[in-house]
Amino acid sequence: MNSDKKRFEKRGLDYPILDGKRTLPGKYYHSQEIYEEEVEKIFYKFWIYACRAEEISNVGDYKLVQVEDESLILVRDKDGSVQAHFNVCSHRGTQLCTESSGNFKSKSIQCPYHAWTYALDGKLLGAPLMTEGDNFSKEDCALKKAHVHIWEGFVFLSLAEKPEPFEVQMEALIGKFSDWKMDELRIAHHIRYDLKCNWKLILQNYQECYHCPGVHPLLSELTPVQSAQHDFSKGAVIGGFMDLTKERGSMTMDGNAAAPPVCEVSGDDLQRIYYYSVYPNLLLTPHPDFVLFHHITALGPGQIVNDCYWLFQPNVINDEEAQAGIKSAVEFWDLTNKQDWQVCEQMQLGTKSKRFTRGYYSGREDVLYALDRELLKALGHDDPESTE
Amino acid sequence: MNSDKKRFEKRGLDYPILDGKRTLPGKYYHSQEIYEEEVEKIFYKFWIYACRAEEISNVGDYKLVQVEDESLILVRDKDGSVQAHFNVCSHRGTQLCTESSGNFKSKSIQCPYHAWTYALDGKLLGAPLMTEGDNFSKEDCALKKAHVHIWEGFVFLSLAEKPEPFEVQMEALIGKFSDWKMDELRIAHHIRYDLKCNWKLILQNYQECYHCPGVHPLLSELTPVQSAQHDFSKGAVIGGFMDLTKERGSMTMDGNAAAPPVCEVSGDDLQRIYYYSVYPNLLLTPHPDFVLFHHITALGPGQIVNDCYWLFQPNVINDEEAQAGIKSAVEFWDLTNKQDWQVCEQMQLGTKSKRFTRGYYSGREDVLYALDRELLKALGHDDPESTE
Amino acid sequence: MNSDKKRFEKRGLDYPILDGKRTLPGKYYHSQEIYEEEVEKIFYKFWIYACRAEEISNVGDYKLVQVEDESLILVRDKDGSVQAHFNVCSHRGTQLCTESSGNFKSKSIQCPYHAWTYALDGKLLGAPLMTEGDNFSKEDCALKKAHVHIWEGFVFLSLAEKPEPFEVQMEALIGKFSDWKMDELRIAHHIRYDLKCNWKLILQNYQECYHCPGVHPLLSELTPVQSAQHDFSKGAVIGGFMDLTKERGSMTMDGNAAAPPVCEVSGDDLQRIYYYSVYPNLLLTPHPDFVLFHHITALGPGQIVNDCYWLFQPNVINDEEAQAGIKSAVEFWDLTNKQDWQVCEQMQLGTKSKRFTRGYYSGREDVLYALDRELLKALGHDDPESTE
Repeated sequence: MNSDKKRFEKRGLDYPILDGKRTLPGKYYHSQEIYEEEVEKIFYKFWIYACRAEEISNVGDYKLVQVEDESLILVRDKDGSVQAHFNVCSHRGTQLCTESSGNFKSKSIQCPYHAWTYALDGKLLGAPLMTEGDNFSKEDCALKKAHVHIWEGFVFLSLAEKPEPFEVQMEALIGKFSDWKMDELRIAHHIRYDLKCNWKLILQNYQECYHCPGVHPLLSELTPVQSAQHDFSKGAVIGGFMDLTKERGSMTMDGNAAAPPVCEVSGDDLQRIYYYSVYPNLLLTPHPDFVLFHHITALGPGQIVNDCYWLFQPNVINDEEAQAGIKSAVEFWDLTNKQDWQVCEQMQLGTKSKRFTRGYYSGREDVLYALDRELLKALGHDDPESTE
Repeated sequence: MNSDKKRFEKRGLDYPILDGKRTLPGKYYHSQEIYEEEVEKIFYKFWIYACRAEEISNVGDYKLVQVEDESLILVRDKDGSVQAHFNVCSHRGTQLCTESSGNFKSKSIQCPYHAWTYALDGKLLGAPLMTEGDNFSKEDCALKKAHVHIWEGFVFLSLAEKPEPFEVQMEALIGKFSDWKMDELRIAHHIRYDLKCNWKLILQNYQECYHCPGVHPLLSELTPVQSAQHDFSKGAVIGGFMDLTKERGSMTMDGNAAAPPVCEVSGDDLQRIYYYSVYPNLLLTPHPDFVLFHHITALGPGQIVNDCYWLFQPNVINDEEAQAGIKSAVEFWDLTNKQDWQVCEQMQLGTKSKRFTRGYYSGREDVLYALDRELLKALGHDDPESTE
Repeated sequence: MNSDKKRFEKRGLDYPILDGKRTLPGKYYHSQEIYEEEVEKIFYKFWIYACRAEEISNVGDYKLVQVEDESLILVRDKDGSVQAHFNVCSHRGTQLCTESSGNFKSKSIQCPYHAWTYALDGKLLGAPLMTEGDNFSKEDCALKKAHVHIWEGFVFLSLAEKPEPFEVQMEALIGKFSDWKMDELRIAHHIRYDLKCNWKLILQNYQECYHCPGVHPLLSELTPVQSAQHDFSKGAVIGGFMDLTKERGSMTMDGNAAAPPVCEVSGDDLQRIYYYSVYPNLLLTPHPDFVLFHHITALGPGQIVNDCYWLFQPNVINDEEAQAGIKSAVEFWDLTNKQDWQVCEQMQLGTKSKRFTRGYYSGREDVLYALDRELLKALGHDDPESTE
């Protein structure tokens, strides 16, 4: 285990007990105007999670990714790189693909309307009946692109013209979980959840365990709330962990590991569940024996799609005898997820009241207070704390 | 019968024949902006009907009541009083209850998210892991409350900080129907109607019988349109009555009384059906033998829920032989209601036309003209009559 | 065949090859604000197609026609004329009719609410209990009307107070297709399509055949794309034609005529399919043997209803042996329509992207460029071409 890992920095002085610090006003979960600001200043600007590299492993494989109004085609190019094209024909704006995933057999992308044809790298190859001249050149008509960065099998996008370097936004993540060799893991299971709540309520829910004793009796038995440690936060990455009570345990229905430890995971990591928010749309939960992650897609101030994935080692996925363990890990988290969705949706409903001004944070919710500050900073809003 | 009852004041000089007086412009039924003004200046300010006391008769019984964006918990407290709490946890704004009615078995209200617990009177009893201090005291964190007033078994709410006294808003109602002893009556039947029209169209429909001959042939046979009398109006209460043609009659499918006269009802009241609008959301219809009422919940400028209830004496409800009579009263009003909903929904559609400027009132619709004036006054709008 | 017909004017110098001319910005298909401008300045102002005269052939027959928020009653009056009344009672604004078509048996129109009764010409006949006087006269209370003009069996409306003469807006249409005697044809079939796209995308799709080879393989076999000729455009009418390859052919599943030539159709017209946009809501497609037309009803920036009708000679419709031919014409166009709807809906999706600024027109899409200019002129918007 690498001794210079950042994971052992403990809760610092900048996160004191915050009893009585106040939450954001309710409008941050309901206002269409604030949501549109978030889209512009966060979803269209930050690096955001898009898909797993394994989902588009062969040349021509593609997956559509929706970022608010924008549809993007993530495609494996001939040179093995991943390209992210806006799903819009340069001719008259027709959406090129409508199937959520597939393979471009011809190794080119053709518009169904007037048959304009693009290379997998987005270059315009052919525009029937169009003559290049003063006002039209193929070169100007390549598909518009988003930036792509792959980190340990996770494909990230940025829709910004000139994004901040990935390594700056994700500094706290780099090298953090290298023992898991996550690029070698594969998707064993996927569940899509449609939720009626603001995207930030899911992040808040993920970042505190104050709710665990009441909401998650089984989880609290496997990893006691008292063991929750704030681990690290820098920029877009905020993390912590909880300790497993059982030797060789994990988050499954019977509390036993679902599979052998992943790759080179060892030492303390064998007894810990890590919870890392990779702001704004990825929640990453490495276990000793598998990795769980949530991909959040906002569809408005009060609606999201939450895609939950379970990553295991390929040899585990292919081992018939290991299926019961995988099933138990899926069942545990599906149960736990649904417990969380219920309270998040109730919080969405309650915070709409005009009588809800601002709530209170306990000392166990200090990370939420920090998340709120990051949001206000990204939006360029005055901090309500400083204006009272 | 009490001789100083207010019920015999006759149509006064202030309600002359108004042929040709004009209606409000169509935007009063369609504009989102005007609707939001109504919510602020009427629904969040006036005393409004919430539920029957009998629906929450035991300690811990509760019913949720929706007032536009606000959800309220009406609950029977240990001391027998009724409390109305905003359904919002003081901690982070989670909605406390989602079931439309029930009983708090523990005689306390617990948030499902972080287990903050409140007494039935709204006081915060416990906030796990929270330390009282400079920024946080339990005393500040009681549930927010609405005002409550119970009149003859009808529970009214006001969301205003300092509402007008109930007796001022409802002056015309006090003592008016004491012979019915309505607090002793019980709900025999309930039907919920979802309607696509503005809430004011239902009040207008209720306050004139000009439409009865064409829309309600059966009703017009039992109570001829010529018998309609404007009775009284003061502030939020406007009323009238119609005469039953049949001795010992009532509003049922065969026109015969559904049950013996209610409590102390006698004299002229045995031959009358009263129609009282208790502005803004209750329509009260005392019959000799039962009481019908409508509870209107606005959900936007063009959508309402209308809950219709039939109240009978408990001994009638429990008498097997009386069931046919109750059924006949329910059937009559369900039929009549649906006839009204049809024309109200057609009026909602028609008034949306840009070519509908303002309509005309007949002398039979003078009360509607007065209702419009009350609305304009409550909203602080100029009267279109005075600006022509 | 009339030698002074306007149909042989060929593509003029004002329609050069336009490779690289730019499309409108995407907001013209998505902005609610621009859509509302279009409603005011186009749908509520231009002559628009309403229904076929045959649909209301007997006295008292009516059909409801929706023009955005406005519902109109098209009714056959006693004198044989067609009247277009706003579907709004003058009394309090109730919608008079809700059935999409029917017959006023009483030869009068009665409001279902308070029984106000109007003659078929809209005059108020009776208002029960209303007294004429200073503020109310029946004369002021006639139904509001739209203007009506019938051209070859097609009933057109204008909601403008003072519309441009029909002959001015439709100059290019007058006398154009007199050989078809379209007022003698009858509806053999009707299909309603609900589409998720802007109304202008349907007109654009109709006015270019650049998409035909890829989208319509069967159509392209029957009428090769190279044969497409721009025919004429003046004001609201823009047209062209394509040549049938097969002798005595038509647009059917096997390419053979579905019926004998219509009325006096002869000469070149026996080998041509005409495509005429009658701006803004009628697409007229005369074949040698039948007439196809589309009636477009916009329901918002991204939603339309498209009613497609097949007109044949009455003797063909009544001939049992001709049914297979009619069926084949219906099947061909239903197939072709659905191919078009698919790409139009994909264009609606793609043009929503913020990265779609403006697209490119080929020389085959010159009519679309002209249509865009007409739109900008009607809206009074600056031309983006001139502001670059």
